[in-house]
Amino acid sequence: MLEELQKNKDDNVTDKPLIGIGLDAAVIPIKGTEVFLLQTCDYFYPIIDDPFLMGKITCANVVSDLFAMGVTKIDSLQLILKNSTRMTEKEINVIVPLLIRGFKAAASKVGCKVQLLSAIENPWCTIGGIATSVCKSNEFIMPENAQLGDAIVLTKALGTQIACSVHHWIDVPEKWCKIKNLVKKEDLDKLLKQASYSMARLNLTAAVLMHKFNAHCCTDVTGFGILGHANNLVQFQKNKNIKFVIEKLPVFQNVDKVAKACNMSKLEKGLCPETSGGLLICMTPENANLFCKEIMELEKEKAWIVGHVAEGNCIAELVPAPEIIQADFNPRLFKEHGDDF
Amino acid sequence: MLEELQKNKDDNVTDKPLIGIGLDAAVIPIKGTEVFLLQTCDYFYPIIDDPFLMGKITCANVVSDLFAMGVTKIDSLQLILKNSTRMTEKEINVIVPLLIRGFKAAASKVGCKVQLLSAIENPWCTIGGIATSVCKSNEFIMPENAQLGDAIVLTKALGTQIACSVHHWIDVPEKWCKIKNLVKKEDLDKLLKQASYSMARLNLTAAVLMHKFNAHCCTDVTGFGILGHANNLVQFQKNKNIKFVIEKLPVFQNVDKVAKACNMSKLEKGLCPETSGGLLICMTPENANLFCKEIMELEKEKAWIVGHVAEGNCIAELVPAPEIIQADFNPRLFKEHGDDF
Repeated sequence: MLEELQKNKDDNVTDKPLIGIGLDAAVIPIKGTEVFLLQTCDYFYPIIDDPFLMGKITCANVVSDLFAMGVTKIDSLQLILKNSTRMTEKEINVIVPLLIRGFKAAASKVGCKVQLLSAIENPWCTIGGIATSVCKSNEFIMPENAQLGDAIVLTKALGTQIACSVHHWIDVPEKWCKIKNLVKKEDLDKLLKQASYSMARLNLTAAVLMHKFNAHCCTDVTGFGILGHANNLVQFQKNKNIKFVIEKLPVFQNVDKVAKACNMSKLEKGLCPETSGGLLICMTPENANLFCKEIMELEKEKAWIVGHVAEGNCIAELVPAPEIIQADFNPRLFKEHGDDF
Repeated sequence: MLEELQKNKDDNVTDKPLIGIGLDAAVIPIKGTEVFLLQTCDYFYPIIDDPFLMGKITCANVVSDLFAMGVTKIDSLQLILKNSTRMTEKEINVIVPLLIRGFKAAASKVGCKVQLLSAIENPWCTIGGIATSVCKSNEFIMPENAQLGDAIVLTKALGTQIACSVHHWIDVPEKWCKIKNLVKKEDLDKLLKQASYSMARLNLTAAVLMHKFNAHCCTDVTGFGILGHANNLVQFQKNKNIKFVIEKLPVFQNVDKVAKACNMSKLEKGLCPETSGGLLICMTPENANLFCKEIMELEKEKAWIVGHVAEGNCIAELVPAPEIIQADFNPRLFKEHGDDF
């Protein structure tokens, strides 16, 4: 329907952020004050079976649009939630509190209270949220200042949605037979865990470090895949004589193998949709190295320099045969975060 | 499900506006600035058949929560919209643009651009919105300062949801036979028109006049009916030794008659849910009279003094046998607003 909506927009209807600025969030200057309103809203259906973890993922996904703008303080966070009309009362009583508790657990890490909004009746469970921040101009980073020679950093590995999909294939014989010689069931369990942990992880530390290391621009990787979002980001730049070149694709362990076996070529094309993906950030190569080092110190999590900014014509491109990097599976992390999972 | 949600809330989850203040909208003080964030979100299913008018009603309904706080400037307005999965492509192509255009037409009267958000798939058409304002403390009115002796003003007649329901009864023989001796089909057409026009009308002028006439507190009348919202409002007052007494119920023409015939007693009990209802405002009796006079001058619309603030124990009550006032049906208005309908 989005295309329909777009056909019908005119002067005061837009699917883009308002007042012409902002990429991941609406950025609205407030007249007569020194502040800006930054706002984002997103909702969807649960994509994993664990409701607590799904609550965390929802929160991480909603606030990510603000973190991508370098916002580090959320002023208002609303959880939009409705059980499926097909759920039994018992299912509702178990699942809904866990979804809320998960969302809340993630929100508490942002230091923000949560207000509940009931979504309308739906055969599918609805979950999402609205995140709002009121910022001074130095508290967010307009994603428009990429420089020739910048390094491009990615803070999370790719493959979240594939990881969720393939896990269901264990129970579908005609799909399972395509991959059973490549991976063990335990590998897919691990893959789902790794992806779930990644989706639930907040991009907050990355947002804080964007300021420290003078990020020139940033977006978060979600529905359009790394290349799609790189393309959106490059078109937003003031400098129209640059291009973004992506050379490396960090992926969860085994996700590239199963994607290939199943003719899911979007991953290696950089176009595979992600849920609650990482930040894609341009900064000087020196700062990019320091950024990656510091995020590892603070979060024990890798970030990767995946590309660079070259002379070009406002496009993003993936090099032929990009290097596929297998992101480590770190069981220690799951132990440390045991209480949360 | 709301009860379930409430059972599971704790420190950082609330179904009430955040930071303990605000009744119809969240009111959040922004640290390090002089501004507050006021925000509301609401969505539902279309309740009338005319999609353009339904778009206007949706906008009026969403922004009303901010107008009830005396806010007169909306900084961000998002339209949440999704066609029903049961709609044909042709239906979508006709209906969706009209819904958008209606919402936009109402939004343009508030001077606010509209950002589109696609809701998730649903068998029912989903429509709603998010309205946000960033205000200095003198730009909104905390609904907490009712005074003994205040008059209580209502700015729209009651009966919107009954008007929408009974119109469908024309086609349901067992329902139609209950009312066909009381009203003509034309009367129900008129009633639906009057209610639709009322729902589409913005509470903006009323919000502007709240400042001029020093309103002490205000709420808007929606799902809980006039008495339910009066009750919510009185409990929000700083003065705990007052009660709100409602003596009059202004209703659309004929709506009380059909409600009575169909055993819908909620209307005369002041508990009939409204969509995009009027503002319910406390101010001095002198100012209340001036308020009603000026809104008639500016909008050619009646407002009524429907009650008063008396000594009491923090409750709202309806007098026995309240006076039912038939709100005029003004065909001239429909002609004047012809372009909009």
